[in-house]
Amino acid sequence: MLTLHIAPKTCALASLIALEESGLQFEVRGVDFASSEQRSPAYLAINPKGRVPALVTDRGVLTETPAILAYVAQITPGGRLAPLDDAFAFARMQAFNSYLCSTVHVAHAHSRRGARWSDDPAAIETMKAKVPQNMAECFRLIEEAMLAGPWVMGAAYSVADPYLFTVGGWLKGDGVDPALFPKVAEHRARMLERPAVKRALERAEA
Amino acid sequence: MLTLHIAPKTCALASLIALEESGLQFEVRGVDFASSEQRSPAYLAINPKGRVPALVTDRGVLTETPAILAYVAQITPGGRLAPLDDAFAFARMQAFNSYLCSTVHVAHAHSRRGARWSDDPAAIETMKAKVPQNMAECFRLIEEAMLAGPWVMGAAYSVADPYLFTVGGWLKGDGVDPALFPKVAEHRARMLERPAVKRALERAEA
Repeated sequence: MLTLHIAPKTCALASLIALEESGLQFEVRGVDFASSEQRSPAYLAINPKGRVPALVTDRGVLTETPAILAYVAQITPGGRLAPLDDAFAFARMQAFNSYLCSTVHVAHAHSRRGARWSDDPAAIETMKAKVPQNMAECFRLIEEAMLAGPWVMGAAYSVADPYLFTVGGWLKGDGVDPALFPKVAEHRARMLERPAVKRALERAEA
Repeated sequence: MLTLHIAPKTCALASLIALEESGLQFEVRGVDFASSEQRSPAYLAINPKGRVPALVTDRGVLTETPAILAYVAQITPGGRLAPLDDAFAFARMQAFNSYLCSTVHVAHAHSRRGARWSDDPAAIETMKAKVPQNMAECFRLIEEAMLAGPWVMGAAYSVADPYLFTVGGWLKGDGVDPALFPKVAEHRARMLERPAVKRALERAEA
């Protein structure tokens, strides 16, 4: 059995959507960030990083969104969620996911998690001020150079799609008008039509 | 033919070591950061992100260290550089690489690239001040919970090893005593004995 640990409004939504798309059996457990449950001994025993997502499998725990996404794609019956038989295409998908985790998610994190990188409240405010510019730059690159359309990698849906959907959902809260990026906005609308995305959004907010 | 674009003292060293380990034929091109060549139209045509590494293949360009590392492992004859036949073990390796790119490399980047996240020189100084603490926390987790030994994933060498070697090489410059992490230090010494690592270091500094 697979158990995915999530929290609302986090990047864990990407893994949740991927699991909903996969047809695999899995359970969901919410981690209560409001009471700092992610720092509880019980949760740190699952994920010593104190973050979500964490995917508990029969063989151990997996963390980090790009790793979980590729794993879900690899164990999905029929391999519908990634170009598994084409190392180059798989690497292109992984490069997209890696950009989201190491650059775009990090740009976003400076809006709410600035205390990770500075102890000075005034400095943290200057980080917040730059978030709209940085997120807009990231999404300009995604819009112009990375999102092939209709899905991230082109004709075939992959686990890169729920990840873009998840991170793209943060734009408005980060002070960026999503309408600036029409291809990303169309991708979002297309995602919202998928039953797996609807189910995941219901479960993530439950 | 494969062509890897690198610059000294960057994470591109990880991909260079992986290619040296692979036995694949490849060329190396240096990108001159001192003259901002990474922002030149010629280089931006290769990698619009203006960063290294970038791996030019016959089918197109790959970026992002974790994606390049997994790709090199997948195309290496005999598949010696990753657990390719075991989705769970492969995901564990990818989780390690993803942690390095999204958390450890980002912690390090606040020492020299603070201008990415704040326009205020005083704020950037406060980020620099926190780098030793953040890098030490990351490497404590690696030492205690992630580095199986003798190689990152255990008995078998994988592309996670050159990545740890590369990022671990930044500790001293970030004000952290590498001796605080004996397993990481032993791993580093073990890596330095490998002919592929020696060749890569020579080429990276040439």
